[in-house]
Amino acid sequence: MSITPYEIDLDPNPANYQPLTPLAHLERAALIHPDHVAIIHGALRMSYRDFLTRSKQLANALSALGLTRGHTVSVMLSNTPAMLEAHHGVPMTGAVLHSINTRLDAEAIAFQLDHSDSKLLIVDREFSGVVAEALKLAKADPIVIDYDDANYPDDAPFPKGARIGTLDYDEWVQAAEPDFDRTLPQDEWDSLSLNYTSGTTGNPKGVVYHHRGAAMMGYANVIASGMGRHPVYLWSLPMFHCNGWCFPWTLGVVGGTHVCLRWVRAKAMYDAIADHGVTHLCGAPVVMATLLNVPEDERPEFTHTVSFNTAAAPPPEAVLAGMADAGFEVVHLYGLTETYGPAVVNEWKAEWSALERAARTTRKARQGVRYPALENLAVMDPETMQNVPADGETIGEVMFRGNIVMKGYLKNPAASKEAFRGGWFHSGDLGVMHPDGYLQIKDRSKDIIISGGENISSIEVEDALYKHPGILAAAVVARPDDKWGETPCAFVELRSGHALSEADVIEHCRGLLARFKCPRTVVFCDIPKTSTGKIQKFLLRDQARTLGA
Amino acid sequence: MSITPYEIDLDPNPANYQPLTPLAHLERAALIHPDHVAIIHGALRMSYRDFLTRSKQLANALSALGLTRGHTVSVMLSNTPAMLEAHHGVPMTGAVLHSINTRLDAEAIAFQLDHSDSKLLIVDREFSGVVAEALKLAKADPIVIDYDDANYPDDAPFPKGARIGTLDYDEWVQAAEPDFDRTLPQDEWDSLSLNYTSGTTGNPKGVVYHHRGAAMMGYANVIASGMGRHPVYLWSLPMFHCNGWCFPWTLGVVGGTHVCLRWVRAKAMYDAIADHGVTHLCGAPVVMATLLNVPEDERPEFTHTVSFNTAAAPPPEAVLAGMADAGFEVVHLYGLTETYGPAVVNEWKAEWSALERAARTTRKARQGVRYPALENLAVMDPETMQNVPADGETIGEVMFRGNIVMKGYLKNPAASKEAFRGGWFHSGDLGVMHPDGYLQIKDRSKDIIISGGENISSIEVEDALYKHPGILAAAVVARPDDKWGETPCAFVELRSGHALSEADVIEHCRGLLARFKCPRTVVFCDIPKTSTGKIQKFLLRDQARTLGA
Repeated sequence: MSITPYEIDLDPNPANYQPLTPLAHLERAALIHPDHVAIIHGALRMSYRDFLTRSKQLANALSALGLTRGHTVSVMLSNTPAMLEAHHGVPMTGAVLHSINTRLDAEAIAFQLDHSDSKLLIVDREFSGVVAEALKLAKADPIVIDYDDANYPDDAPFPKGARIGTLDYDEWVQAAEPDFDRTLPQDEWDSLSLNYTSGTTGNPKGVVYHHRGAAMMGYANVIASGMGRHPVYLWSLPMFHCNGWCFPWTLGVVGGTHVCLRWVRAKAMYDAIADHGVTHLCGAPVVMATLLNVPEDERPEFTHTVSFNTAAAPPPEAVLAGMADAGFEVVHLYGLTETYGPAVVNEWKAEWSALERAARTTRKARQGVRYPALENLAVMDPETMQNVPADGETIGEVMFRGNIVMKGYLKNPAASKEAFRGGWFHSGDLGVMHPDGYLQIKDRSKDIIISGGENISSIEVEDALYKHPGILAAAVVARPDDKWGETPCAFVELRSGHALSEADVIEHCRGLLARFKCPRTVVFCDIPKTSTGKIQKFLLRDQARTLGA
Repeated sequence: MSITPYEIDLDPNPANYQPLTPLAHLERAALIHPDHVAIIHGALRMSYRDFLTRSKQLANALSALGLTRGHTVSVMLSNTPAMLEAHHGVPMTGAVLHSINTRLDAEAIAFQLDHSDSKLLIVDREFSGVVAEALKLAKADPIVIDYDDANYPDDAPFPKGARIGTLDYDEWVQAAEPDFDRTLPQDEWDSLSLNYTSGTTGNPKGVVYHHRGAAMMGYANVIASGMGRHPVYLWSLPMFHCNGWCFPWTLGVVGGTHVCLRWVRAKAMYDAIADHGVTHLCGAPVVMATLLNVPEDERPEFTHTVSFNTAAAPPPEAVLAGMADAGFEVVHLYGLTETYGPAVVNEWKAEWSALERAARTTRKARQGVRYPALENLAVMDPETMQNVPADGETIGEVMFRGNIVMKGYLKNPAASKEAFRGGWFHSGDLGVMHPDGYLQIKDRSKDIIISGGENISSIEVEDALYKHPGILAAAVVARPDDKWGETPCAFVELRSGHALSEADVIEHCRGLLARFKCPRTVVFCDIPKTSTGKIQKFLLRDQARTLGA
């Protein structure tokens, strides 16, 4: 191809090309809205001016300890101001922010500290016990900083643990210079953060985000969530989870207020909504359950509509109706750690609201369409890398392509190569594409049950179970079977006041599903869930295996 | 600097890196909202599905004629569906869209066709006369396509001209295949469009935009304009002007509706607002004047607030008050052709609305802060390239840096180098930075009047003139002066029913300005303006020179 005049003497230079970075969002907010409240935490009110200053002080404090480009700074923090500062101050130095899931055990923490070669670790005193244990197990020897939250709630269900660090976070940051010429990322492809997947088998994988993707998520989140100027965002989603879906950086785009929240408890959430005028919050379905578990007459009054972004399982109709009654508008999102959190949104069409209930539920159950900043989303046959027919029936693997897909897995080229084979990110989720271009997830690859050669979607069986008024929670996994290979095994949690037999449950399912899809086994129990509300199917699969074939 | 693990085996690949392009916005809208009305033009309603299909057909039709990457496709089109299709179909082929100002004369058009080496020209029959003349003057020999608008208004002030092309646009596009595997830009830095500056001296310069910048403008415009889902956008700003500030591409981000408009006339605009529920429109101050020139009792009723984005001169308080009374909310923007249109926004703070009138006016007169997608904005001494003090008084040159700055000037490396010297885009505008970080323009470099060694801002003198109730329009330029070097010369257009003498005008100014800043000369006349409502100061400067020293 020949060179055209449009390619001559028109090269990038600093005037017309700057690396995209989410750090620019905070800088712009501090410039425009210096006095606006950026962070609310207990009695604390921090302006955007101070938020930027504190982040620069953190960057200076880190630099003084030698932290620089390519180093790992780990944090074991709740949804507190320190966590928000870390999301900005750490990448300002060029270091990579490694957020640790605060529910992990010592061994898992030690693995991450070693794998990421952690140089410094900021730890909230709520978690100092388990972290002390992890540090004994780990080969890595990070500098440890205690975060002693001055606004630790008085009614804390967990007491603060001992100090285990060599420095106190607030004193250390406060003592640092407020001016910091941040090291702009040399390239927008520079690494920004590290989040380990919860990996149920083998060791977790370290997902690396880049500046470009997180900058784009800032715009995409604002647009997908319909955020106007100065939204008020309640931190019911853990910031250690995919960097809180990138909302720590997003709010700067529109000068929003972060309302911190250490524990997901109904009273604290309703108080924040009433006292601070929360407009948006995110969370797994368990957060909605927590909100709805409060008797109506004990909920404070609020007149504005609150937007609730949820991901993971599609919200059951009863929950959606309950949320609407309680004043929440639910937006259904889907994504993975590898896609910076949400990368698919159930873009709701006005005309769907007029549909009858069953049709409406069908629409709500879909994961939706690609996020504003995602370039492509497809359901493919992973062998041929061809799209499956968009018929709402043919199952394929959900694939992503675009600028909000991770750089890859840290120190794991084999896993990265496997995830990116054919030039698409392979999610491991199975789904169908509807004729109207909306995606619906059918199952995780590993959650599909193959019985007599037929694929059974565990989600489909769970949906049938949830339709029984006596069933509070349900999870279906494969149980080994000599004759069929596998059969569906249902774990069921009953609502209080309800009593059901195995036969009752199976009979209920037969009214809704083909016979081969109905559970052969029903186990009544408390279903184990992760801290983010995800059902821990791997535990149930283990249990189903012990039931024998 | 040593290589860290964060740079190893984590390279871009098609799964995680895709070129940013504004073409993605239309594709996503067509996927999600295929049946939503994308374009309204007279009786025409075009869905997003059809908008994408038509754009692909145009791309196929162009490809069939040999148009490809790096070629120039010129258009001389009004704000019609063909112009919107051209904004998508042309870049899909890799060709560059060259939009010609429809008010230009034959000579200026011929210059652009030659300079851009135009290969194909789509021309609306409204302009076929002047274009035929231009083609005679030009050395370039583009394929000419007639656009014969089926929805040409019945009450057209200008009749359609003759057909001058070899093909009819609608027939040509309709005959093309609807499937087009678009040539993704090989790089997001690829050239997208070409817009010539109105250059008042010498030949105009060809400003080249890239895909990356226009993609970012899509997000930035939505956020700066506070656009929710499905805005309705009235095309009162010419699309040939900085590609309509990138709104032809922006609306896809939020599934908005384009309402076409061939001529800026009050009735058509009010009808569109009433009939189609227009939520947003843009334009120069002259468009506001047109809207307000209609007696109140002849305006149709509408209850929603309409957002009006204006640029160029800061809107006078009387106009703002009038617009508020008429149901418009005015957003004040600033930018240049070289910055994709708006790159600065007067981000209005809620507390400013409570200020008294004078203080409010002062705030409204500022150009504001950097646009969401602009990385940096500064007022500098162009000699030292240091920021001037942010004291609201020290004048410097306004400089831009970021991803919404042009690639450069086509075939003009000297001008590009000059514009980008020191790694910043030099706007040629003079301004001050206020202590709160808000920019205020004081003048164009060439509009400053230097009298007795003192700088006089022509804008400051004009502001004083506009405060006189009898003055409808005012423009101040330098008149050569033997003693002082230059003195301010005012051109004044009076409101009907008002009579003023030169002495009256000067006396009025003395009440508001230091004596040396007051006009020495006052000329009463109709002030010449461009098609976009900009006062043509170069004509006035010529006239002032003829007055002698």
